[in-house]
Amino acid sequence: MEIVETINEVRERLARARVQGRVGLVPTMGALHAGHASLIEAARRACDTVVVSIFVNPTQFGPNEDFDRYPRDLRADADICERLGVDLVFAPSTREMYPRVNRTWVEVEKLSEPLCGARRPGHFRGVATVCTKLFNIVQPDVAYFGQKDAQQAIIIRRIVADLNLPLEIIVCPIVREPDGLAISSRNQYLDAAQRREATRLYQALSAARRRFADGVRQTEALIATMREVLSQSPALRVEYVEIVDAETLEPVASIERPALVALAVHAGSTRLIDNTILDLNDPTASV
Amino acid sequence: MEIVETINEVRERLARARVQGRVGLVPTMGALHAGHASLIEAARRACDTVVVSIFVNPTQFGPNEDFDRYPRDLRADADICERLGVDLVFAPSTREMYPRVNRTWVEVEKLSEPLCGARRPGHFRGVATVCTKLFNIVQPDVAYFGQKDAQQAIIIRRIVADLNLPLEIIVCPIVREPDGLAISSRNQYLDAAQRREATRLYQALSAARRRFADGVRQTEALIATMREVLSQSPALRVEYVEIVDAETLEPVASIERPALVALAVHAGSTRLIDNTILDLNDPTASV
Repeated sequence: MEIVETINEVRERLARARVQGRVGLVPTMGALHAGHASLIEAARRACDTVVVSIFVNPTQFGPNEDFDRYPRDLRADADICERLGVDLVFAPSTREMYPRVNRTWVEVEKLSEPLCGARRPGHFRGVATVCTKLFNIVQPDVAYFGQKDAQQAIIIRRIVADLNLPLEIIVCPIVREPDGLAISSRNQYLDAAQRREATRLYQALSAARRRFADGVRQTEALIATMREVLSQSPALRVEYVEIVDAETLEPVASIERPALVALAVHAGSTRLIDNTILDLNDPTASV
Repeated sequence: MEIVETINEVRERLARARVQGRVGLVPTMGALHAGHASLIEAARRACDTVVVSIFVNPTQFGPNEDFDRYPRDLRADADICERLGVDLVFAPSTREMYPRVNRTWVEVEKLSEPLCGARRPGHFRGVATVCTKLFNIVQPDVAYFGQKDAQQAIIIRRIVADLNLPLEIIVCPIVREPDGLAISSRNQYLDAAQRREATRLYQALSAARRRFADGVRQTEALIATMREVLSQSPALRVEYVEIVDAETLEPVASIERPALVALAVHAGSTRLIDNTILDLNDPTASV
């Protein structure tokens, strides 16, 4: 495995690999965990060359968000990549990715506006822009994203379609702790009490899923069920609990087509998100 | 020469060419003239495979602009391409380029705001987006643009740099009629009287250039000279006469670094633009 820091090195290193076989990219902000590992493993199974990018992208953090304290440990991340059979780690500096003031932004209308977009202005613009940059730098045949960041995955798919980017996007399922908590780099911010309470996001989604399996289609009722579960923990502050169309992200009153159930909750200063898809064709699937 | 209408055909047709040699793209809206020919010739000299795209892009026209009457003659354009040794013409339908409502936009801050951007809201967003799409479809090693659309060329260069697009941008000089009028597809809208008066754009730029060669550096004085020349024709209505930094497009009071002198003038319902660069290192160059 090789670790490179510059765009030129990535391009040189991949010039031959690109002609000889499939290149898979797993874009990450580091702090790699079992969720990232599942993406890398999927890439390893399907691609000849697996590239992991590690870059904590400043343009997707708001001024009062956790850019400065976001966990960074390249050594530990590189060890994980090595163990998983990654071929190339691209770990650029901010200066390498943004050598001048950035003027060009990739903006996705409508899909960036609800859910996390409403509470994190500019977040998805930063994500869209840095992913487009990474796609252009690595030029992969396929890139892997996690369903944990459901809105991000939908936005990335739309960028690829709208801008005719020559790659395929694969979205892998959420990886959960044994108690159901969706694995996230930000879970390490939680203290022991918050960590116990954090499992209620999963419990809320599971409760909604059970009522859906019982035939409830009205989103108002499902949202009430989830809010009820979350309200049992005074340590959690709900940011949003929403059910939207899984493609357009527009709110739905009754579930007729696949719907995204999405939660954002604060535990102290830590923001946690989780989601599930409710689909009439598969009403009893687990979260 | 082959003419294809679909993205899949372009990609199939170029898959081998891309590996074997340099691919050059000349993006056009058709109505090909000597300006386009100079771009195609430059591509032909430098590239193994030359692709010309012909697409009148609706997203870069304002609601009251000339999208509907913009000249379209694929047969004549194809003949010109054939004669110039083009390998592949990509002439997609609007539906092929925009099969669904477009949500993803490439936006270039600051550089899109002054000059034509101020009078054509959304124009450069449309240009930036469609060029990014064309770059992703054709994946050329190099793309050719004309200096006639100076602000466009600066914006495209910035997109390529900011988004790390893996191609080179070459900007070719303005091609002029014998009387100095910059060649443009829109010149064919002019009646005989307007056509005669339209040469004053070139005369205004030439007058500014003479004063600059004589040592005048104050942009206010140079602009006054140009407005004086243009005002001699009652058939022309000045939209803007500006002198800006050739890189940032910010107004300059005195020319210390290369400056873009840019004009937009209406002759009847036809909008004409022209420009020149004033550079202290080359003060006596012609327009």
